[in-house]
Amino acid sequence: MTNSPQPAFQTERPQMRDLHWSRKEKEIAHKAFQQALDSEFETIAQKVKKMAEKIELPDGLWDLEEFLTKSRQGIGRKYDYRYSVLPMVFGILIREGRLREDDLQGLGEDKLHYIRGYAQR
Amino acid sequence: MTNSPQPAFQTERPQMRDLHWSRKEKEIAHKAFQQALDSEFETIAQKVKKMAEKIELPDGLWDLEEFLTKSRQGIGRKYDYRYSVLPMVFGILIREGRLREDDLQGLGEDKLHYIRGYAQR
Repeated sequence: MTNSPQPAFQTERPQMRDLHWSRKEKEIAHKAFQQALDSEFETIAQKVKKMAEKIELPDGLWDLEEFLTKSRQGIGRKYDYRYSVLPMVFGILIREGRLREDDLQGLGEDKLHYIRGYAQR
Repeated sequence: MTNSPQPAFQTERPQMRDLHWSRKEKEIAHKAFQQALDSEFETIAQKVKKMAEKIELPDGLWDLEEFLTKSRQGIGRKYDYRYSVLPMVFGILIREGRLREDDLQGLGEDKLHYIRGYAQR
């Protein structure tokens, strides 16, 4: 066994997919993710209630169906809880106003770097 | 040109698809069809409003979407305004309580025969 020297080409910042998430960070991430998702559901439900109240027949029914289908598909695309992409997901949620950076307090700078990058795009 | 005698095997009652609809009968049929369809939309809308009011997140959203999709597909299958099948459509609508025979007053006995047959199945 030898102690290999660090190779010269190694970059200081790991790729997003290679970040290590501590147990504590995973807890914070999970809580923020669920909070954003709940808030997203609540927004959709409010819109659904308004659409249902003033439904104009028959098109209002199918407009509501289409809204729900697109909402479900949009959530499926956006809410991807793989750690390899989670900083991007959080960045987008901050950009959309669904989360604040404060909600992610306790995540390491290595994650926040990517999150801020996606939040500002 | 010869006047062929009526073949002995000809039935007196024409097939449903061969019935002749007068202009007046078409008007009656169209009105009843639209009345049933409007009533169907109203029933769906009432159910949608109830579901939307007491939505439980998140499943209530997708239950509502599924209800709307199935309602739309069901209407597409049931409301078929081809004269060749219209007596069957009216029969089913009477069986479901969506129309009464009175709503079809003015249709000939040739149509009512089939309508009653389907209504009683």
